[in-house]
Amino acid sequence: MQEDYKVGAYSVEGNVNYDDLVTKFGVSLIDDDLKKRIKKDAGDLHFMIRRGIFFANRDLNWLLDQYEKGNKFYVYTGIAPSGSMTIAHLLPFIMAQWLQEKFDADVLIQIPDEEKFLAKKDMNLTLEKAHDLAYQDALDIAALGFKPEKTKMFLNTEYADVVYKQAVRVSKYLTFSIVKDAFGFGNDTNIGTIFYTSTQAVPAFLKSVEQGTNVPCLIPLGIDQDVHFRVARNAIDKLGYYKPAIMHSKFLPSLKGGPKMSASDSDNTIYLADSPDVVVRKVNRAITGQQSTAELQKKLGGDPDKCAVCQYNRYLFEPEDKKLEAIFEGERKGTLLAGEHKKDLADKINKFLENHNKKKERLSDRLDSFMLRA
Amino acid sequence: MQEDYKVGAYSVEGNVNYDDLVTKFGVSLIDDDLKKRIKKDAGDLHFMIRRGIFFANRDLNWLLDQYEKGNKFYVYTGIAPSGSMTIAHLLPFIMAQWLQEKFDADVLIQIPDEEKFLAKKDMNLTLEKAHDLAYQDALDIAALGFKPEKTKMFLNTEYADVVYKQAVRVSKYLTFSIVKDAFGFGNDTNIGTIFYTSTQAVPAFLKSVEQGTNVPCLIPLGIDQDVHFRVARNAIDKLGYYKPAIMHSKFLPSLKGGPKMSASDSDNTIYLADSPDVVVRKVNRAITGQQSTAELQKKLGGDPDKCAVCQYNRYLFEPEDKKLEAIFEGERKGTLLAGEHKKDLADKINKFLENHNKKKERLSDRLDSFMLRA
Repeated sequence: MQEDYKVGAYSVEGNVNYDDLVTKFGVSLIDDDLKKRIKKDAGDLHFMIRRGIFFANRDLNWLLDQYEKGNKFYVYTGIAPSGSMTIAHLLPFIMAQWLQEKFDADVLIQIPDEEKFLAKKDMNLTLEKAHDLAYQDALDIAALGFKPEKTKMFLNTEYADVVYKQAVRVSKYLTFSIVKDAFGFGNDTNIGTIFYTSTQAVPAFLKSVEQGTNVPCLIPLGIDQDVHFRVARNAIDKLGYYKPAIMHSKFLPSLKGGPKMSASDSDNTIYLADSPDVVVRKVNRAITGQQSTAELQKKLGGDPDKCAVCQYNRYLFEPEDKKLEAIFEGERKGTLLAGEHKKDLADKINKFLENHNKKKERLSDRLDSFMLRA
Repeated sequence: MQEDYKVGAYSVEGNVNYDDLVTKFGVSLIDDDLKKRIKKDAGDLHFMIRRGIFFANRDLNWLLDQYEKGNKFYVYTGIAPSGSMTIAHLLPFIMAQWLQEKFDADVLIQIPDEEKFLAKKDMNLTLEKAHDLAYQDALDIAALGFKPEKTKMFLNTEYADVVYKQAVRVSKYLTFSIVKDAFGFGNDTNIGTIFYTSTQAVPAFLKSVEQGTNVPCLIPLGIDQDVHFRVARNAIDKLGYYKPAIMHSKFLPSLKGGPKMSASDSDNTIYLADSPDVVVRKVNRAITGQQSTAELQKKLGGDPDKCAVCQYNRYLFEPEDKKLEAIFEGERKGTLLAGEHKKDLADKINKFLENHNKKKERLSDRLDSFMLRA
């Protein structure tokens, strides 16, 4: 039975069938062979790859061919500001930071401060507000441990002297027909949104432009963003640059059990700006795979796949496989009660956020060294 | 009988019916009252306004209301580089320079180096070539006598840090539906061209953004460019700025008698880069309103309206009305023969170009003082 779901750049709905998505999008799974190869080249394997959270790819074997021949790649990822970052937004950045560390990769981070301004129908998110949010995001990103000397970030409106010119080159190869089909645009779509994907393509070949020679690029992203590069990779190829390789992540589930934690569903989403109290309150209301009472749970056990608390440990907060397995086992066998289960996760999140906020404080007056401007 | 013609931003066809166009585009004629008012405020009336070459307007009375209240306006015009400028391209710039002189107006000149790159199907006009052509255009424009301290020019790709952000604001108000109807776009139009009109709108309110208060703007342009502002004026209004006022010119006819001299019809077009020999050769092949032989011409006379040589004097090369009337009279009565008629025009053009080239030489190492870059 085919499940009803939709994964688009601007919305995700229903229960995502990731196997089906791999076929639909024409991407490949990160299988055991590829995991072994990454581990060999990196000297390690990130738990998000081990656990199939980063589960799919485009051209990752080609990228590692290049790497093994001594042709180093750079990493590109980004975030469109619309409010405080959530913990779901961390996935591609954590992966980018790991890739930087293990492959000595330069990292380029695009903060398209115009994207949500253009995409949202309401007028509350002004460009000025998006600009401020972009700088908050930049600080959150920097605090994840990127090397200042190998990491550059930019806002599209502030780096437009570089970005717009290259976006124009991309846009010549993209007709309305192409973006209409890819993004579901119509006659009522504004022309800024129609053009926007051209700018998202730019960092995927910008190092090649700057260095005057082709440099491989790897993009870790949530699979909902793949569409931008399904469209752009052909244009980038026609411009004579390497198509970027991509690593796709699944979506961090909603605390209430939906397929994707959404920044606009504030009760079921944990923001990096949340206070410890708020984190405790939100986690306490999270869905678990457990039975309705402690008695039943002890007797029948629960289902880790349906349990947001288990999944948050798996996606983000329990890097050690053995400890994760103990949590899952406790859930399955009913020895781990909801209360302590949730307290453990809330503690982990709050410990992460406490550290994160300290790092932000230390970096706040050094953020400028990360930023590219004209 | 309705004539078949088409005036679009990207092509002009057929015999343009200017009276019909005024109704169709919803603009107003520059009538005798308005001419008087301009003359009163300027202390003079440019021959292109006197002769109905700049023949139509939007909100020019409003602009003069503002001026008379002490609220000075600035002038915005531009050119999309695709090759050497032609003498037809001079019209809005000559008017802009005159407005600067008479109204002490600042002038802002946009050189959208991406427009033709995006609009042309072929790949010969690269962005690099467009960039070089843009600087040639900038020098040609500067040589027309603009005051360096009151005149700024920019290339869209070089000033994108300013232009792109403001274009994004405009683009939020323009749907595909609007630009599709206005410009005749379809599914096969590239998304750079679809977005482009947003950038052409920007200089019409940029001074208001920079000064933090509304500044009136006047745009002299060929009437084929009116469509950009039919579309943009609503968006500019919604952004809270004054809609720009516009002065529209008719098209300089082709040397062979078509409705519009086209930069892509090189044999019937005079480029600013043409040598004196080439000018003589091209003018000698121009259509006149004269009879087929000198005998017949002396007997029957000719028609100045059908004579490209008369029209080039009227549009550009004979500012004195009495001298122009003498030329027209000679054509009508048959006393002015084609040979001397053409020699006179070729001499005037070559004298203009000789002076123009000298001015360019003097300015070539001072051009940078005109340019805005990020």
